Formats: sequence, structure tokens, C-alpha cells
Amino acid sequence: MKKINSALISVYHKDGLEPIIEAFKKNNVTIYSTGGTQEFIEKLGVKVERVEDLTSYPSILDGRVKTLHPKVFGGILARREEDHLGQLAEYDIPEIDCVIVDLYPFEETVKSTNDENTIIEKIDIGGISLIRAAGKNYKDVVVVPSVEDYAYFVECMEEHQGATTLAQRKELARRSFKVSSNYDVAIFNYFDEESDDITFKQSIHQSQQLRYGENPHQQGIYFGELNNMFEKSGDKELSYNNLVDVDAAVNLMAEFKDDAPTFAVLKHTNPCGVATRPTILEAWKGALAGDPVSAFGGILISNTTVDLATAEEINKIFYEVLIAPDFTAEARELLSKKKKRILLKINEWHTHKKSFKSLLNGVIMQDTDMKSAEKLTFETKTDKAPTEAQIKDLKFANKCVKHLKSNTIVLARDGQLLGMGCGQTSRVDACRQAIAKAQNFGFDLEGSVMASDAFFPFPDCVEIASEAGIKAVVQPGGSIKDQLSIDECNKRGVSMVFTGTRHFKH
Amino acid sequence: MKKINSALISVYHKDGLEPIIEAFKKNNVTIYSTGGTQEFIEKLGVKVERVEDLTSYPSILDGRVKTLHPKVFGGILARREEDHLGQLAEYDIPEIDCVIVDLYPFEETVKSTNDENTIIEKIDIGGISLIRAAGKNYKDVVVVPSVEDYAYFVECMEEHQGATTLAQRKELARRSFKVSSNYDVAIFNYFDEESDDITFKQSIHQSQQLRYGENPHQQGIYFGELNNMFEKSGDKELSYNNLVDVDAAVNLMAEFKDDAPTFAVLKHTNPCGVATRPTILEAWKGALAGDPVSAFGGILISNTTVDLATAEEINKIFYEVLIAPDFTAEARELLSKKKKRILLKINEWHTHKKSFKSLLNGVIMQDTDMKSAEKLTFETKTDKAPTEAQIKDLKFANKCVKHLKSNTIVLARDGQLLGMGCGQTSRVDACRQAIAKAQNFGFDLEGSVMASDAFFPFPDCVEIASEAGIKAVVQPGGSIKDQLSIDECNKRGVSMVFTGTRHFKH
Repeated sequence: MKKINSALISVYHKDGLEPIIEAFKKNNVTIYSTGGTQEFIEKLGVKVERVEDLTSYPSILDGRVKTLHPKVFGGILARREEDHLGQLAEYDIPEIDCVIVDLYPFEETVKSTNDENTIIEKIDIGGISLIRAAGKNYKDVVVVPSVEDYAYFVECMEEHQGATTLAQRKELARRSFKVSSNYDVAIFNYFDEESDDITFKQSIHQSQQLRYGENPHQQGIYFGELNNMFEKSGDKELSYNNLVDVDAAVNLMAEFKDDAPTFAVLKHTNPCGVATRPTILEAWKGALAGDPVSAFGGILISNTTVDLATAEEINKIFYEVLIAPDFTAEARELLSKKKKRILLKINEWHTHKKSFKSLLNGVIMQDTDMKSAEKLTFETKTDKAPTEAQIKDLKFANKCVKHLKSNTIVLARDGQLLGMGCGQTSRVDACRQAIAKAQNFGFDLEGSVMASDAFFPFPDCVEIASEAGIKAVVQPGGSIKDQLSIDECNKRGVSMVFTGTRHFKH
Repeated sequence: MKKINSALISVYHKDGLEPIIEAFKKNNVTIYSTGGTQEFIEKLGVKVERVEDLTSYPSILDGRVKTLHPKVFGGILARREEDHLGQLAEYDIPEIDCVIVDLYPFEETVKSTNDENTIIEKIDIGGISLIRAAGKNYKDVVVVPSVEDYAYFVECMEEHQGATTLAQRKELARRSFKVSSNYDVAIFNYFDEESDDITFKQSIHQSQQLRYGENPHQQGIYFGELNNMFEKSGDKELSYNNLVDVDAAVNLMAEFKDDAPTFAVLKHTNPCGVATRPTILEAWKGALAGDPVSAFGGILISNTTVDLATAEEINKIFYEVLIAPDFTAEARELLSKKKKRILLKINEWHTHKKSFKSLLNGVIMQDTDMKSAEKLTFETKTDKAPTEAQIKDLKFANKCVKHLKSNTIVLARDGQLLGMGCGQTSRVDACRQAIAKAQNFGFDLEGSVMASDAFFPFPDCVEIASEAGIKAVVQPGGSIKDQLSIDECNKRGVSMVFTGTRHFKH
């Protein structure tokens, strides 16, 4: 146990400091401070020793150099042992038992301005040095490195009448290096933005323990602020597998966010039912029809507020998660009655610009596939060009195919996914699967369109699709045998367009 | 352009400093230093001003406080403008135009000892403060924050006769915050090991640009040292999709690394052929037979040195990557003749203990699924127990099923994968696909075994499998309808074991 006799305080956030000052006053702690923090404490009627008086050195260079002095750092860094204490006495350096610093938030500065000088000026030197020095010497000194630690520190002091335990000081030391590393990662990222050299740097301190990972024998955790993205209702917690599916669902629906009412059903990250319709109720019915079997226990997402009529229909099946921009009060009330289901109101259609994952002995990162079908150029390669209605369907199908696991084929008509094959090791298998599924769920494929995530290596897919009634095809092209597929289309009166853009997703 | 008139040097790595000192001497740079660095420079016959003389303050507390003084930090942090320069003159502080610091490597200390005092003592305070101060004031001051930057700095000075450009100083400032953030992430991780609080922190500065990501319109990059894990031959570079497949291949083969010779063929991360045999040649033939079609352009991996006889057989098909612990000289010579193929000699069967990926507005992380079939308990649930040979096959099948995308079913016999269905939205579809594939490649399934990554919700899979000739089944169990599957097995004289361990992988 170490009693605090002296403390150095220099903070940006002053709210929440009062109970600390009060406790210090009660325990007769000598307080060193300067500038705005000094004024704040003095207004509370508590005496403050000025840092400038301690060092006999003024604050110079507009405050750039204030605490960087042996009289300050000696008092913080000295081990409380005979030898070191003797040196403090020799050089008339007072012990400093506690350092409370709250840094000006650097990241907010970067967000709020592009002015380089303003940003540079906000790079803290002295405060970080104080935090790090006190953290290093946690055996004898207690550090409070951020406004977020004020309350914990007050608890510590209350527990032991103004003293702290070694475990408490070590915990605060840990937090001090969390603060300093987060701070310098932010500065590095600022400098790094303009550079060619690339470092993988991530630092996320918000975390949420999951019940388990993909399987019960694996621990799982999510780092990030899900609450910023969603408002969740329902008692059930999102599982690891739910989050993976929700991610896939959001990425898919982000493609449709400016379209007419659209609903999608996903299972194991793959959309198995998608429909765009004049009303949200019709969109739901159209999506469900795409694969009413897989919808059981699936993830549902819509781009439009869910109303009561739609909620009544959705309520008939068991799903795990339903995501929408909003729910009417009546819809929410109805849907909330079933306990094992999660409702997510999505606040922002956030998608990572860069995606990464751990792999081998490191991390692999790539640009997220942000090319939407809306932005692609459709180049007609066949004698026949697709009709306007077909182009609309081809775009719809291409948006879906991008979000299915490769190799994948999507069949669609009138803004509805009729069938899909995905995760196949050959393209023709994906094609056969898509047709079989569509027919299995009662769709006549006559006049429908087909999208493929990658080129056709052989004309077999076009042949099989045409037999089933498909009339227009979109694919990236790029095979040395492209002409065979084009010839097959021409022979059969099918139109085909190339996008030049592959959509592999494994 | 800024000429350097004065420099402060304090470094751990002295090798490579000579050309800097030489250049400083030529340009009449005033050098401030202390301790070991001072001795080193003086031995080169160059005059040094002691930091202690500059500050008129001794190095105290065993060197804990040495440079933390306004005379040092004022000289570094002052903007070279009238107001600040006036203050320097007033307080008799000399300008310091250059800071060269190389920190004692903290991470190596942590690796080399468990002694807390030794580790704490190595947390640098003054050096980091110098680096950060000089980095902040890059408009006027140049920082050399690590031994890795000595050579670059020499180049900069040579280019401009002892001066540096703003762009060069900004680049070095960027590197200074790279050093400080890496350093504090390492310290934080040290403190954090014992804590319950969890932060996602990653910092990898080795990187390798890939030709592109999953698709040509996406940039891709790998962070890490692949060379530590593999020795690559062949001119072709590993692509993003190759790396994803290689990762899947290594994770799969790590399960078999202590077994008899085993070969596997993977396509889109899914093993479609696997065989364990007395010789590597037989293992290759057995793996290829599992799916000779998908093997085209696939990823091949073995747990045993590839010899000439095997290489001759492998050479007959086109593959993208072949991974093995080694190749005989003759095998390597033969395989290297084809230019568009990559050979990887694997040095370590490294697998991440934790896996993570970016997701929604954060990162999701989980324990890697490390439970091998060897460690699972097989609990017989049927009247009939599996024979010893069947148990061997069930283990083999369960190792494979763990590495296939869910929902998945594996059929195997005599240490050979006969068929698999994967990435399916329903289990019965996976079962049907596995049987169809096996029969398609000419396998009679009589007497084979089946593994399922998750429980059977209905008895239909057992029924279909038994019709095809399957005689033993392994699955985790856990469905409320488990008994229906058990009854179906008993009716058909099939044995079934439960592992209690699900192997979802999406």
C-alpha cells in the first residue's frame, strides 16, 4: 500500500476531477499544476504549487516545454529506495507520488481540421512523457492517464483512505501504455496517410465478449462499437456466427440502399432470397419465395422501414436476426413478442473500405469490392442486345452474385432472385445448382436472366441455362474461350453482356 | 532545405553510425551526446559536447533522468521563428537541429527474461521523448529514430551537402511515430498479458504488395514475413487467392503432420482430395483420385518430402502451388521446369492460435479451431460399434470435415476422401452432393464412413448415406432429434459415434 503525498495534475477534461481534488484535500496531498488545470483547482478553493515554481523555470515556447524538467521527472522516476531518495534530497527534488494527465484528443483534431500546423501543435510531448514515466515507475507512483480513469482512481483511494495497492497501480500503468500507444498509433496514421510505405496498425479498445466463436470450444470476441452502427432490441445476444452473417447482409443491402423497397434472406453469409418490389411487404414475400426452406433460422435484411403488415408476415417464420433502417411502432411491438429473435435498427450502412484477416503468419488485406453493378459498363457481345427490362434484371442479378461465395451463378427475373448456386468448385455445378433450386421452389425460368461472378471457361453453362429458359446473361468475360459462349448465345437467341469486372468472393 | 548545425545522439546500435559522424565532422556539426554513445564517437576522433554540460545537470537516478531538461527539449521543440528563437537566446538554449536515437529493443528483453525489474528498467522514457519531440518539430528538425534509418539519413545528407528537405524530414517524422507506437504497443502488450481487459492491437511493418486482391480491381497486400514460413521457388508470385488457399492447405495438413505420408488437393480453400498412404507416391495418387477434375489449377500439399517418382506424376497436371516439407534435388529440378507453378518448402507448420477478420465497424476474433480428431472422444451411440478400421477412417474423415466450408459432409474409406459436399445451406444437400461426387469419380461407397461437421437435424442424411453403402458415421450430436438418426442407424446396421465437438467453418 502506498499513500499519496503529492500529485502532479495536467488535464484537458476537467469534469470528474472534483472528487479527486476533494480526496486530495482531505489527505493533505501537495498538488502541482499549471495553466488551466491550476486555475480550475484553485477555483475549488484548494491550494496549488505551480510547476514553474517547482522547476524555477518558466513555461516557454508557447507551452511546448513546461514539465520537461529533472525536478519533475526525477520526482516521478525515482525508486523509493535509499540510493535514489538520497539523490532527490541532494538535488532538492520533491517526490511526486501521483500523475494525473488527460491529453487533448488528437484524433478529434485530425477529424476537425486539415490545417497541418494546427494538427502538429496538438501533438502532445510533455503529457505523454509524464504518463509514460509514471507508468514505468508504477511500483512507487500511481498514474491516472485519462479522463476515463478518474472514477476508477477515486474508487481506489476511497478503498484505502487515500492510498493505492500495487495491483491498482499496475492496472493503471497498463492503462497508461494503452493511452500512449493509441495516441501514437493515431499520430502515425496521420503521417502515414500520405506515405507509400505501409504498416498494418490496428488498435481498438472497445470490446464485447461473445458467447463463443464459430463453435462452442472456441472463444470469440468483437472489437468495435456495434452500438454506433445498430440499435439492438431483444434479450438474445448476437453470436459470432450472427455477426458474420449480419456483416454479409449489410454489405449486400448497401448495394440496394437507394433502390425501391428490397428484402433479402441470408444463410451462412449467402443471400438465398432477394427481391425489389414497389412495397416492403411485396419485397418480403418475393425474397422469402426465393428459398422458403433456407429462410428458417436465417438473417433477414431490408432497405426500408418494416411496417405492421410486413411484420405480421415475417412473424410467421423463425429467423435469428432482422435488420432494417427502422420499424414502425406497431411492427416493433409485434416482432418483439418472440423472445429468441434479434431486431437491429441500422444507423449507418457502414462498410469497410479495406478488409483484412489473419492468414498464415500475418495478415492479408484488400480493398473491399466496392464496384456496384450500377457503375459497371455492360458491353453487348451477342447479335441480340438485352432489352431494357433485362438490363434491369441483369444489374439486379449482378449485385447479388457479388455477395455470394464463388463459384456462383444467380438466376433472376423482375427484380427477384429465382435461384443461386454458390461455393462450388466448378462453374457448371453452380449453374446446375441454381437451376435445380429455382425449379425446386416452383419457378419457371422462362425469360429469366443469369449472372456469373467470373467468366465461363466453356459454353456449357450458357447451353444449360438456355435450355432452362434463360434469355440474357451477364459475366465479366476474359476467358480465352469467350467466343464459344458468345457463339452458343447467338445460336440460341440469348443476349450476353460483359462487364470486365470479376466478383470473386471466397 | 535545412542545414544541420547541431545534433543530439543517443543510440543502442552503434554499427552504421560511422558515416553519419563522418558527415557531421565534415560539416562542422556540433554533437551532443552522453554515456556509451559519447565514448563511441570520441573513439572515432570526433569532439563531443556532453549533455550534462549543456544542461548543467548530472545524469541522475542511474540514468533514468538524463535528457529530460528544458535546455534539451527547448532546443529541439523551438520553431525557428523570431519569437521562439528570442526565447532560446534569453534562456541560453542552443538549437538542436537533429536527433538521432536508437532504443534498446524492449521486445527482446521481454523475450529473454521474466524478471519484472529488468523488464521495467528497459522501458525507455527519455529516448522516446526525444524522438517524439523531434518528430513533432519536423519542419525545423530532423529525427533519426532507429538504426534502420541510419542509411536513409546518410543518403539524405549526401544528396544535399549536409542538409535535408522538408519531405525527407516529414518521412523521418512518420518513421519516428512508427517507432514510438510500436514500442508502446509492445509495452502495453507486456502489461496486458496479465489483465482481463482486452484490446485489439496489431502492428506489423513487414509488408508485401500483391498483384491485386481477390479481383483485379481490388488492391491487395500481405503483412508478415512469409519468408520465415516458406522457401519459395519459381518466378511466379503468390496471388491473394493463392495465399488464402495456401493458408487453408497448411491448416489442413497440420492435422496430418505426424501421420503416414499424406497428400491433399484444395480448390477455393476446400480440400477435394486427401489420402494417407504408405508412400508419398501412393498418397498423391489417392488424393488426385478424390476429384481429378477440381485438381486442375488447384493447390497441392504433402506432409512428406516429395521424391522424383511422385514429382513425375504430379507434373502431369496443371497446379498453381505445391507445398511440401521438402523436395529431393531431382524432384525439385523436374518440377522447376514448368514456369507458371510455385513450389513452397514449408519450414514450420505455423497456425495462428487466434484468428481475426474485419467485420462491420470493427474486428471479430476467435480461438482457432485446434481440436483435432485425434484428441476427441468417440462415444458410440448405436447398438453396433465401429470396427477399429472404421474408427481410423472416421478420424480421417473428421479431420477433413473440419477444414471444409459448412455445411459439409465427408465420405472416406481406407484413408482416402471419396467425396465431399460443402458450403451448402442444408445438410442433406451436402450429403447428396458428397455421394454424387464420389459416384461420379467412380467410387463404390460400400463400406465407407461419413463425417458431418454439425449435428443431423433429421434422419434423412443417415438414410441416404446408408442406401449408398456407408457403414459408420461420426457427428458431434446435439440435435433434439438425435434419437431419430440413432434409430435409423440401428435399423440399418450402421454404427454412429458422437464427438460433442462441432466444426463449423464459414
